[in-house]
Amino acid sequence: MITNNKTFLADLKLRWGKIQALLRANGADACLIATNVNLYYTTGAIYAGYLYLPAEGDPHLFIRRPVGIEHPQVTYIGKPEQLPALMAEMGIAKPCLLMLEADELTYNEIVRLQKAFEGARFGNATALLRQARTVKTPWEVEQLRLSAAQQVKAYARISHCYRPGMTDIEFQYEFEREWRSLGSLGIFRGFGSSMDIFMGSVLTGDNAATPSPFDFALGGGGLHPSIPIGANGTLIKEGCALMVDIAGNYTAYISDMTRVFSAGKLPDIAYKAHSVALEMQAMLEASAKPGYVCAEIYNTCLAMAEKAGLTDNFMGTVQQAKFVGHGVGLQINELPVLTPRSKELLDENMVFAFEPKFVLPGIGAVGIENSFLVTASGLEKLTIFEEAITPLT
Amino acid sequence: MITNNKTFLADLKLRWGKIQALLRANGADACLIATNVNLYYTTGAIYAGYLYLPAEGDPHLFIRRPVGIEHPQVTYIGKPEQLPALMAEMGIAKPCLLMLEADELTYNEIVRLQKAFEGARFGNATALLRQARTVKTPWEVEQLRLSAAQQVKAYARISHCYRPGMTDIEFQYEFEREWRSLGSLGIFRGFGSSMDIFMGSVLTGDNAATPSPFDFALGGGGLHPSIPIGANGTLIKEGCALMVDIAGNYTAYISDMTRVFSAGKLPDIAYKAHSVALEMQAMLEASAKPGYVCAEIYNTCLAMAEKAGLTDNFMGTVQQAKFVGHGVGLQINELPVLTPRSKELLDENMVFAFEPKFVLPGIGAVGIENSFLVTASGLEKLTIFEEAITPLT
Repeated sequence: MITNNKTFLADLKLRWGKIQALLRANGADACLIATNVNLYYTTGAIYAGYLYLPAEGDPHLFIRRPVGIEHPQVTYIGKPEQLPALMAEMGIAKPCLLMLEADELTYNEIVRLQKAFEGARFGNATALLRQARTVKTPWEVEQLRLSAAQQVKAYARISHCYRPGMTDIEFQYEFEREWRSLGSLGIFRGFGSSMDIFMGSVLTGDNAATPSPFDFALGGGGLHPSIPIGANGTLIKEGCALMVDIAGNYTAYISDMTRVFSAGKLPDIAYKAHSVALEMQAMLEASAKPGYVCAEIYNTCLAMAEKAGLTDNFMGTVQQAKFVGHGVGLQINELPVLTPRSKELLDENMVFAFEPKFVLPGIGAVGIENSFLVTASGLEKLTIFEEAITPLT
Repeated sequence: MITNNKTFLADLKLRWGKIQALLRANGADACLIATNVNLYYTTGAIYAGYLYLPAEGDPHLFIRRPVGIEHPQVTYIGKPEQLPALMAEMGIAKPCLLMLEADELTYNEIVRLQKAFEGARFGNATALLRQARTVKTPWEVEQLRLSAAQQVKAYARISHCYRPGMTDIEFQYEFEREWRSLGSLGIFRGFGSSMDIFMGSVLTGDNAATPSPFDFALGGGGLHPSIPIGANGTLIKEGCALMVDIAGNYTAYISDMTRVFSAGKLPDIAYKAHSVALEMQAMLEASAKPGYVCAEIYNTCLAMAEKAGLTDNFMGTVQQAKFVGHGVGLQINELPVLTPRSKELLDENMVFAFEPKFVLPGIGAVGIENSFLVTASGLEKLTIFEEAITPLT
């Protein structure tokens, strides 16, 4: 909102409009936004403070940091208890139903805000904002395109990062270096507390089957018990698959793609399972379009895995993820989620990652992941890059 | 707790004992732990689920993931609503006062747990666990020593990462690569939502003065508005200081140290301000011991800055941090905090980072940061490494 870029401001207004429509549909007067992700979504920047967005009219920022901003839509505050009085001074009507980020702010943060706005009723802004963020605006689609294009450039360097005799983590260090040099922002954000990971996941051999406490599609033991996910120091051996699933965080909007490499030739089952994953993707590309039921994507894939005799390998072995894709955007796990019972329908300008994968004992993980934009007539793949299992040399 | 290592189990029991003493002091019957950091603190591992730790007796894990653990102290659950019935079956008494992580779990997570344990009263486990974690056990001190020793090895490579003509971020990419190869775990954890950063901070020139929305000692504009902190692409110019403050996350316990490098010779004021920071550290080392008032550390430093005519440069310029140090451990910002009004006293086996820093217009940031263990008689420095401003060649 603090911007001289008219195109960007127009796009912000589209986002405010979507939230405001949802506020009105829920009978709410306003939402008060305090999380980094939702502040970035609604302002294009991050503050320590709050954005008050009423159901009608322009939003206002009440912030503690950074200092030094002079703007008619910014007021400095010390603590949230000052909000009602400051708002009254500014002529902002007291909200009857105020939406707060109840799935993201801590219990004590929300209780403190509820006391500050005593007399009001409160609803859940998290659910509402996640819904608003599901369908991307033109600027957001462009950010995802930029991330995807740069992620593809990074993936094109994977073969240069490999040397025979490497472990998974030694390979990952090299790839991290390449990707950072190409502009990866480093950190990326997830929704919920079960999403700790560093840049992404590299899996080879039986480490791909190791169950994790986290919410990612596949696990891996990790380097240390405090971060039990991904590469664990396994040697990339002849006959093993190397799955690379490192986040596309070139902008704040994260593209997601996975590719599989091989040390030497893999057993036939690996190519067979990989081709089943590609058939799932072909099925998706042939059928998905606005109005398509997300649950059907998962269920069709599961049926295809069953037909191929690969049910026990689909999305893991000892621990199997119960989704085959997820929305992407400012967080790596946005809506919609492609689960067996998802009631969501695809809609134009949703962006989601589709990631059918198989874990094969003694080999590792194979499969594919791409990020797709839902268009008026179908899907557009954003992460265009060789999809076969690529031998490392 | 799921361990065959008797030394580690004995150390875990020390931690449980500290929490249990605090539970009893608060009249609480138990705490239910659900956050990654506190699960790691109490079990040495991370789960999706809960640890129920009663005020007396052994704890029990109720988890969803990872699958496949068979252990008498582990029960699998699907959702938190199952907890009371499962606990009743196991003969665990219903808690009257149950402590929940109210400053860490979301509002909706806590409300759900409160409903599941209807009839109980609830207190704040976050405050209690942060207090328990302030004084480290022998195993925790050893983890911090390991991190500090390896961080020193990484810092010894800083000169090798520099080439004339580099920007701050190009330098950081090289250092990240070195540090990862030496075993940095990559991610590290902070308390609160204002701690987004990737591996740490590298600042040069006037970018050191750029205010940030986050809670770190210094700011920096960052590479992108979604991560407004640290290096921003500034050229490391002749006459500029380069401050390196990258987290020591070799174990889950994070050591913290900062060193300053120079491109060529810096203006005299830089060496003067740097020596004031070293004098502050000498003051600390001469006076701090168990029982010392944390507020006094900050206030003495502020008086020293004033005497040196550097008040306006101390801990920033346009935005000045109101602390000069902080506890370290599983999170980068633990207790105690060295602020003007901190009521905490130093105690044996606390570990804290002391970081007096000055921001100088046209030059950058100078100063020092080391991690210290509080011993019976004083302080032991964990991050031993050259402290002068080191010229880059």
